[in-house]
Order: sequence, then C-alpha cells, then structure tokens
Amino acid sequence: MIDYPAFEAVYAICLEGSFDRAAARLGITPSAVSHRVKALEERTGAALIVRGAPCHATEVGRRVCRHVERIQLLEMDLGATHPALAAGNGGDQQARARVVVNADSLATWCMPALARFTTRTGVLLDIAIEDQDHAKDWLVRGETDAAVTANADPAVGCDIQPLGALRYRATASPDFMARHFSDGVTAEVLAAAPCLVFDRKDALQNRWLADQVGHPVQPPVHRLPSSAAFVDAALCGMGWGMNPEPLVAEHLAAGSLVDVVPGRGVDIPLYWQISRLTADLLTELSGSIRRVARDALW
Amino acid sequence: MIDYPAFEAVYAICLEGSFDRAAARLGITPSAVSHRVKALEERTGAALIVRGAPCHATEVGRRVCRHVERIQLLEMDLGATHPALAAGNGGDQQARARVVVNADSLATWCMPALARFTTRTGVLLDIAIEDQDHAKDWLVRGETDAAVTANADPAVGCDIQPLGALRYRATASPDFMARHFSDGVTAEVLAAAPCLVFDRKDALQNRWLADQVGHPVQPPVHRLPSSAAFVDAALCGMGWGMNPEPLVAEHLAAGSLVDVVPGRGVDIPLYWQISRLTADLLTELSGSIRRVARDALW
Repeated sequence: MIDYPAFEAVYAICLEGSFDRAAARLGITPSAVSHRVKALEERTGAALIVRGAPCHATEVGRRVCRHVERIQLLEMDLGATHPALAAGNGGDQQARARVVVNADSLATWCMPALARFTTRTGVLLDIAIEDQDHAKDWLVRGETDAAVTANADPAVGCDIQPLGALRYRATASPDFMARHFSDGVTAEVLAAAPCLVFDRKDALQNRWLADQVGHPVQPPVHRLPSSAAFVDAALCGMGWGMNPEPLVAEHLAAGSLVDVVPGRGVDIPLYWQISRLTADLLTELSGSIRRVARDALW
Repeated sequence: MIDYPAFEAVYAICLEGSFDRAAARLGITPSAVSHRVKALEERTGAALIVRGAPCHATEVGRRVCRHVERIQLLEMDLGATHPALAAGNGGDQQARARVVVNADSLATWCMPALARFTTRTGVLLDIAIEDQDHAKDWLVRGETDAAVTANADPAVGCDIQPLGALRYRATASPDFMARHFSDGVTAEVLAAAPCLVFDRKDALQNRWLADQVGHPVQPPVHRLPSSAAFVDAALCGMGWGMNPEPLVAEHLAAGSLVDVVPGRGVDIPLYWQISRLTADLLTELSGSIRRVARDALW
C-alpha cells in the first residue's frame, strides 16, 4: 500500500507552507517530516515540494495532496456511520474539498450555498477563482472536486447540472459616457474607449463588442481581477465593463451607472460539474448549490 | 539595437493571447508574427511564448514584455512634450503600467486613486492582486512598476512612501459566535473554530490568533480569495476572519457581524513602492495614491 505517512507529510507542508509548521501539525519533528518527504521523492524520482517561503507543491506533489484530500473525504463519510472505524483519522485532519467558482458567481449568488454546506457538514473548503470558460480545465487536470463553469460538456468522470444563467449588463458611468460616447455608441468609438477586463482569460467584453459591431474589435483595456473593483472602476469612470446585474442593479436604478447600449444584456448559462470520484458527502454541496442557483439565476 | 519588431510581436501575443489576434493588432500576417518570434527565440536560445489557449509568456518572455511596456511609457512622456518625435509610436499602442495592490486595499480605498490617474493620463493599468506581505517580491523580480505593500524596506531601485494603516477587525456572525464561542473565546476554542483565510500567503488571522493566545495556533481554515466573499462568508457564519474595517463597519453597527474579541483591531501599515526606472508619468500616480490614502487610512 501507499506510504501514507509520507503522503501526509507532503500534504501538511503544502497546507502549512513550511516544514516546521507541518511538523507541529503532525506532532513529529521537522527532521522526521523532511526524512519522509525525501524518501518519497527518491523512491518516485520526482520532486514533490518546491522549498520556499511559503513551500508549495510541484505538479506531482499537487497530485499527492489531491489524493490525501480525497481519502479524508472518504474517511469522513466512513466516520459518519462508523465512528469507531474512522478513529485512526485523528482529530485535526478535517475533511477538505476544493471548489472552483467564477469570480462573479462568488460575488453574487453562490456564497450562501457554500456556507450552508460547510456549517452542516464541517467540511473545510478551498475555494479557487477561475473564469467560467476555463474552470473545466481544473476538473480535467484533477485539481478540483467541483466547479461552476460555462461549459455544457462534462469533463471525463464528472456529472453536470445546469444552474441557470447569470445576466450581465455592459455598464459605464454617465461621466464616462459623456466623455467617450457623446456622439453616439459607434463602432469607431467602441474600438477606442477604454474597456475593463478581469484578466487575460476574460472574453466577455470582446464577445459583447463583436456582437454590437459585427466583427472583432480590440479596444484599449485596463485589467482588474476583482468583481467588486470592476464595479467601482466603472463608477469612477475608468472604463466600461460587463458587470453582473445583481452587482449593478442599484447603481443602474440610481443612475450612477448606465447601460452602454440600453437593453443589451447578455445571459451566461452556468453549469455545476462535480467529479464522480468524490465522496457522497459532496452530493449535499450539489443540492445546496442547485437550490440557491434556482432562486438567484435566470 | 534590439530587434524591436520581434519584441513588439511577443508583447502583442501576450496581450492578445493568440498569434492571430496579435497579427490583427500589429496589422501584419500571423505567419509574420510567428516568424519574428521564432527568429528571436532562436537568436536568444530561450523560449519566449508558451503556445496554448491563451498563449502566455515564459519567464524570459515576461521580461521582454516589461521592457516593451517601459519603452511605451517613455514614448508617452516624449509625446507629451514632443508629439512629432513620438509619432512613430502608432495610434493603438497606448502606454500601459503595472500596479500590484493587496485585495483589501483594492476593495476599500485605492480604486478612486487608480481611476483618477487613468482618466487624467490615458495610461492603461494592469492591476494585479497580491498579499501585502508578498507584493515587494513583484518589484524585486521587476514584474511591476509600483506596489502597495506592508514592507517598509524599499526594493532595490525603488522609492518608498508611507501611506498610513488599514485597520482590520476580527469579525464573525452572532450565529457563529453562539455556535463556537458560547462558553467564551478561549485558546482551546480559537484553535478549533473554522477560520477564513484569503490564501496560503495570508498570515493575518494566524498573527492575530497568536497575539490572543500567546503562542502559534493552527485552526481549521476555509480558503477564499476575495475580499467581498470574505465578508459574505463571515455574514453566512462560515467562519471568522480579519476583515478591513471599511468593509464591515455597517455590519458591525447593524449587529450582523460582531467583534470576536471586542476592541481588538489590528492596524496594518501600508507603503507605496515605485520603481525609479519608470517614466515621470507615474509620479502622477504616486501623488494620486498618496492623496487618497491620506483621507482613507489611519
């Protein structure tokens, strides 16, 4: 069987960021931690930990950590019905699951679902933010248990459920509109007015622009990787951007933001994809996500 | 002199994410883009672009992009006083600067300063989010022009200015307090109650805990890389966390959040570090940041 003490040492280092804190967590000496990791690295011929401040896992090391996390979820399932059998688990290794969510879902609708799941089950969550068009890659690489994604094709080994659509509005401040669009929202001006983009992966603005203009347009862009800052930047007149309707509805009603082109919202359908390898425990998370999405999305 | 057409091609690919879109931006064919990049890669013996969807720069490629950006800032400075000399710049290559900011500063005080700078100068910003304890590393690696950091020692080649302190409060929902701290906030319970952590680099919660308890404590943690979601998670009772006072003041007043230990806030002093290599243009950004910080921070 696999050398689980070594796996646990790798996992603890990645969790804590250092050999010393991993040792404290495991109740062994730092040199014992180091010895376990080195032995495993020599046996497998692969580096597992990048030593640094903080330490982090190599690609192979991340696979080790994912394996440990999946086992902990299974142990927690076991403990729910047979506590005596799961007693070796020790107190401090709580089950931990990974979820990938797009920033705008995290900023608008899905936090209550995640919080309800954690308070009911005691599972700890590692939430990562990824563009809805790229979240599926995390599932394909085995780096997450579940993801909110815009991809309707399930990753291999995953179940998929439609969640509804998040509605976006292309919005800007009245001041920005006056500065850039005083002569109307033409293709020429759209190509020149500064646009807000979340990061390099964010294609929403470009897609909306191409729809308006009829061909691809490459406007000057500010990059700003935060949903809340995106709204603030629009309010400050820094640029226009595709903002999720729930984040800007009040500003639109108050007139502090306006639609760049009235009535032209965009609905982005979202899907919940979850790995079949994960323990039954996470089906509760799926239920929680579905219920909240039903009320919040279109 | 350096092969600037090749440098521009590398830069355009990283900006646009693909050879095709880079070609459209530069007004040349995709095969010309590919040829320029390959020739430079062969001459330097280093890969510059990781081909993928989207394409991105290797470490050496990133250095090429930074060089192009700095030149564009210098050209913009030149153009401000001698437009005829800077005419070769072409219309679509707008100057672009990089700024690293901690998520909580972006969520609370610094967006108006960034927006004012962009609207006054027309410079495009690439804003990256990094923990205040690690933002200096970006300056050391030459990957940003300026940073908001908790580090009082300037990086080599950088100027530094104190900005004041961002005040944090350890907060949780009344419901969470009742579930975990009904018998008081003891060291034992603090070590067992779920804690919110932004990411692996976020040491704020652990520092506050160690201050309370007198020694390092390792509570179970949820990881949640968004300032707004951090507040939402606290409101939903998912865990307690160190929240910036401006984001929770209303919730504290309304009673939907409470201090875990009354009166025990933490002030994190912040500094503005800016590379001396950057064009004079960015001194305007420094002034804008300083003015806004003076009103917003302690």
